[in-house]
Amino acid sequence: MDIKNYIKTEAEKLFNGAKSSHDWEHTLRVCSLCERIGPAENADMQVLIAAALLHDIGRSEQDASLGAVCHAEKGAQMALPIIKEISISQSRKENIIHCIRSHRFRGNFMPETAEAKVLFDADKIDAIGAVGVARAFLFAGEVGARLYNPDIKIEDTKPYTKEDTGYREYKVKLCRIKERILTREGKKIADERHAFMEEFFKRFTEEYDGKR
Amino acid sequence: MDIKNYIKTEAEKLFNGAKSSHDWEHTLRVCSLCERIGPAENADMQVLIAAALLHDIGRSEQDASLGAVCHAEKGAQMALPIIKEISISQSRKENIIHCIRSHRFRGNFMPETAEAKVLFDADKIDAIGAVGVARAFLFAGEVGARLYNPDIKIEDTKPYTKEDTGYREYKVKLCRIKERILTREGKKIADERHAFMEEFFKRFTEEYDGKR
Repeated sequence: MDIKNYIKTEAEKLFNGAKSSHDWEHTLRVCSLCERIGPAENADMQVLIAAALLHDIGRSEQDASLGAVCHAEKGAQMALPIIKEISISQSRKENIIHCIRSHRFRGNFMPETAEAKVLFDADKIDAIGAVGVARAFLFAGEVGARLYNPDIKIEDTKPYTKEDTGYREYKVKLCRIKERILTREGKKIADERHAFMEEFFKRFTEEYDGKR
Repeated sequence: MDIKNYIKTEAEKLFNGAKSSHDWEHTLRVCSLCERIGPAENADMQVLIAAALLHDIGRSEQDASLGAVCHAEKGAQMALPIIKEISISQSRKENIIHCIRSHRFRGNFMPETAEAKVLFDADKIDAIGAVGVARAFLFAGEVGARLYNPDIKIEDTKPYTKEDTGYREYKVKLCRIKERILTREGKKIADERHAFMEEFFKRFTEEYDGKR
């Protein structure tokens, strides 16, 4: 059995109908980032890639529950019958479950193993930089939100509404992500992506005001 | 009567329910660009700003007709009863109508007056640069499209579908806009915005592939 292909096939099945901002391609990008960060952090790559492929399988349950279900905890439960079928040690299986459960930005569990830290970082890094900018506006379009609303105070707006904007997502969340990165290799990538994103939004507001 | 305020009030009424990618804020940004480009092109600013405020009032009719109605031609018709009320010369009124009718990228009428050329340019410039990037992805989100689809050929995809992507919008349309700019002042702004947009998408694809 090719473990990676088996998990990939099982995980992808669970992404039918997922919104584009958290779709299967996000998972594939997170895998690429794990392949880049993992070796520098001496991660167990089989555990890491299995966890990366499975990390968001609970997302559609969270969306369907309007946020009542935590996709990280749900995903960890959903991963159990999938990893039960593969022949790796019990402790590595437990690590995969731990990685999935602890990957969420505002989750209840903190990443403890090297693999969980790398997955946490890779998932956050995919939310910043040029890809992060694109995802923020794609998500704004999905929920019927706006580009930018210069007339309102950001702290007065609520997410997932017409008052929400792609720019708000940057100010309340994306600009803080680099401070949360846990690994040294992840920090290098995050700092560079953060700088580009800052440059983007500086230019965006200048253009918005007709200055550039 | 304050002509600008009167037209602004009448035009804004017609934007109820407009999608965010072509909403009233797009109109306000186009006005800001006209105020910047117009003087350098010796434009009649009263004609230009009136036309800028009115240029997209036919947009919701085009959307409702699934593209069968041309928003530039429809907008020109809808502007007639509004500008009938203002006391400016007949030839300036005709120029306002000409500006609205000829502002579309793939329209049937070419801009002939200085004011029509400036409006055409301002409208196109708002589709490129950082604002253009943000609008491309917001629009992709609105129609349920994706960020980027590396597996398909761009020429094989259709717009407004799940196969559509924000990146496709750049490759088939946005990257060609600077070649269509008509005024010298507009060209300066468009060249700078184009360069930034190119840099953005270069970085976007590199990040997408896990290289940055």
